[in-house]
Amino acid sequence: MTEKVYEFKGFPNPARVRIALAEKGLSDRGECVSVNVPAGEHKRPDFLAKNPSGAVPVLELEDGTTIAECTAITEYFDHLAGETVLTGRTPKERAMIHMMQRRAEADLLDAVAAYFHHATPGLGPDIEGYQCADWGNHQRDRAVDGMRYMNDILATSPYVAGEHFSMADITVFAGLAFADAASVAIPAECEHLLAWRDRMNQRPSIKG
Amino acid sequence: MTEKVYEFKGFPNPARVRIALAEKGLSDRGECVSVNVPAGEHKRPDFLAKNPSGAVPVLELEDGTTIAECTAITEYFDHLAGETVLTGRTPKERAMIHMMQRRAEADLLDAVAAYFHHATPGLGPDIEGYQCADWGNHQRDRAVDGMRYMNDILATSPYVAGEHFSMADITVFAGLAFADAASVAIPAECEHLLAWRDRMNQRPSIKG
Repeated sequence: MTEKVYEFKGFPNPARVRIALAEKGLSDRGECVSVNVPAGEHKRPDFLAKNPSGAVPVLELEDGTTIAECTAITEYFDHLAGETVLTGRTPKERAMIHMMQRRAEADLLDAVAAYFHHATPGLGPDIEGYQCADWGNHQRDRAVDGMRYMNDILATSPYVAGEHFSMADITVFAGLAFADAASVAIPAECEHLLAWRDRMNQRPSIKG
Repeated sequence: MTEKVYEFKGFPNPARVRIALAEKGLSDRGECVSVNVPAGEHKRPDFLAKNPSGAVPVLELEDGTTIAECTAITEYFDHLAGETVLTGRTPKERAMIHMMQRRAEADLLDAVAAYFHHATPGLGPDIEGYQCADWGNHQRDRAVDGMRYMNDILATSPYVAGEHFSMADITVFAGLAFADAASVAIPAECEHLLAWRDRMNQRPSIKG
């Protein structure tokens, strides 16, 4: 147990690291440190020194190096032990997974987050800074388009980035969880996406 | 020569792939196909079939698989041949590089792009869709903050992600080129960032 993971239970981005650790069989690795996000602890100077972006999760290595951003943290743990099942084993797999990871973030998870932080009260006036409702509402529409895109992908592919489960599946799963929390509904006709979500809910790393 | 790279010369994101190929000694690999971005060719149905995000660059593999997003394309070429110098050789290097890559995108290159596409005429009314000037201007300020952040990093580190050149340097370099094109000035006090840029301009992969 050499690393610390700063996180907040139940929030979508920290959940991505929890699932990644479970998929790698590394759940016992890393001490979890809770950061009270609803109270704005992630925007205070001592936490901003760890992550100037003011967001969880953050991985702290034994030497004090701090690593923010889920893709970066997943790359770290995926390369620590065993095959790189989450980030890909071949150049083509790596390319597909990183492309779909970026789409899952930009077109779904981050789009829902932008809607939540810009077009709803978000975490409240003490924590939210600049808000732009017009942008936020546009990002809500983008997230729904992102769901339709992922539904099309999952019509012909068992997983988001191809034949194997990867970090891109984790990101879409977390994006849908955030959408639930922000009341952004999955269109009922997205049957492939909904069936994939049911399968994801059965994975030990998610079911717990 | 098995891959195709769809791009447009002189634009910041295609430049990232050109630099990455040169760094890897793979410049002769991949046939370059020009997509006329100023004419809106990247928003037409035949190109959207290759990349639904409607952006260059796109890598097309011999089997017809299309890979969008610079990080994904860089992962592909970095793993094709030799050491993975652009994306990192150890778990810690990979984590640092992917964190800084995300920051270089979100806080600089993509922020400048958002300013350009939302708060200026961008590529013109025939090509630009939804625009939100308030958001665009806020992203301009974010890009300048991103420059100051990178300047702080480069005060104590030779490269953006640590001791070695990586894809994160390429992204910051492209971000500053886009900032020049969009008339977003680098603050004069960012002396470490400016000195780093001078060093980057001397690299064979950039100097050409």
